[in-house]
Amino acid sequence: MVIPTQYPVMVIGGAEDKVGERKILTNFFNSAGGTQAVIGIVPCASQEPSVVGDRYRRIFTQLGVKDVHVLDIRRPRECDEDRWLELLDRCAGIFLSGGDQVRLFNFIQGSKFITTLKKRLKTGTLVVAGTSAGAAVMGEKMISGGSSGESPNRSLVDLMDGLGIIPELLVDQHFHNRNRMARLLSAIAANPDRLGIGIDEDTCAAFKGDGTFQVIGKGSVTIIDPRELTHTNYRDSGDNSPLSLHDLRVHILSEGDQYDCRCRSVCTPNLEMVSKL
Amino acid sequence: MVIPTQYPVMVIGGAEDKVGERKILTNFFNSAGGTQAVIGIVPCASQEPSVVGDRYRRIFTQLGVKDVHVLDIRRPRECDEDRWLELLDRCAGIFLSGGDQVRLFNFIQGSKFITTLKKRLKTGTLVVAGTSAGAAVMGEKMISGGSSGESPNRSLVDLMDGLGIIPELLVDQHFHNRNRMARLLSAIAANPDRLGIGIDEDTCAAFKGDGTFQVIGKGSVTIIDPRELTHTNYRDSGDNSPLSLHDLRVHILSEGDQYDCRCRSVCTPNLEMVSKL
Repeated sequence: MVIPTQYPVMVIGGAEDKVGERKILTNFFNSAGGTQAVIGIVPCASQEPSVVGDRYRRIFTQLGVKDVHVLDIRRPRECDEDRWLELLDRCAGIFLSGGDQVRLFNFIQGSKFITTLKKRLKTGTLVVAGTSAGAAVMGEKMISGGSSGESPNRSLVDLMDGLGIIPELLVDQHFHNRNRMARLLSAIAANPDRLGIGIDEDTCAAFKGDGTFQVIGKGSVTIIDPRELTHTNYRDSGDNSPLSLHDLRVHILSEGDQYDCRCRSVCTPNLEMVSKL
Repeated sequence: MVIPTQYPVMVIGGAEDKVGERKILTNFFNSAGGTQAVIGIVPCASQEPSVVGDRYRRIFTQLGVKDVHVLDIRRPRECDEDRWLELLDRCAGIFLSGGDQVRLFNFIQGSKFITTLKKRLKTGTLVVAGTSAGAAVMGEKMISGGSSGESPNRSLVDLMDGLGIIPELLVDQHFHNRNRMARLLSAIAANPDRLGIGIDEDTCAAFKGDGTFQVIGKGSVTIIDPRELTHTNYRDSGDNSPLSLHDLRVHILSEGDQYDCRCRSVCTPNLEMVSKL
């Protein structure tokens, strides 16, 4: 069944509203097909998958989804068991919960499950949303940890491979809330071929099928675009030395703003929406 | 007496090394003329001016300065008393301490003292360094307070007039150390005609007379250049609404890097220095 996928991929900065207007979750629900959708929750980033899974199950049920499943995958590669692959085939929406992105990666990487998920994304028959850890895994490179309160430097960020759902992204989440600008800058110094995207809590970069995304939610989405980078001392600098990054293009985007990842530019702002903010 | 002023204005991000190599303070000492210099310490940003004044007096004395004075100005406009103006005339270097930038501003704004100081800077017969609060006052607009941990928004930063020693700058200090990127971004949204400069602790933007500065010290200097800004929702946004800022140019600069404020570009990096980092 081909369904209308308004936002095939939704990258959420964590702590999305779960009790009020639930704007982001409602957008996911609608993108997946609304009340008729089959929705699968993948809570395996969390150490408490049944608690987290149940919470989202209740929310989507309240929104009117009749067919919600928790894909409570408990071990690496368990996702390739027939019961989970069959469920994935039935789902129109997959929601990746928060928790630990390394755990999520280790459970799913290299599986038939992730290959199938990506194939279905390409054919426009699936919507995938990820929040917090579920957002972190979106790129081919992933921030697995780090800290804040220092000049950007190599030791400020831990990097590893991600699931590559949108390969070019280098995602950071809880972004301004946890003061992660220096950490994302450090990650971009290590990977100047990627596009840095820092997403605040209760905020979502909602990707359309055409490589553009729209900002939904309460905070901002920060783009760090190193395509015009003229210099970095990354290769020559020690682990704790301050990094240089010359000529970054940075955008702070808020609700209604649209960004085109292909041509790396902000689309004409929706002035009507802006004036309502 | 015209003295060689290598760095007529030194803007220091606070917490400069006072016990080790003292690189930044030594650069100030040298720029002011070394052991033969008359140096004046203005501790009036601090609530404990005699403690702070004495501390810097000891440091500069240890560095070999024979003629060090603490200009312990205790009230607004007291700086225009003859004893302080005469001392200012004799000084080759003025050091503005940390503390509260609003206090410093209120004590010195609109005075003959600040007018004389600026005149002497223009004629190349004075070196002025300011650290922390002493750095904050450098621009014509000044960040007087604010917070962090939120998406950039109007209420995240308090703004007022500064002393305008380098008018176009909008300075923030203890920059990455206190996670102030969102606050400086919010300040720039309100003042897109300024150049945002965030200076880390024990780090200095050392301005030459020609509008360029060099980075000295342990951390980084962050430039937020809104000259190519294509859109901001600042005017239309509520106090707590997330701000949009499209097409900022951002540079992360570290020791040895040079930036030209006139043409708003990084000067060719000193590769020899970079490779030593």
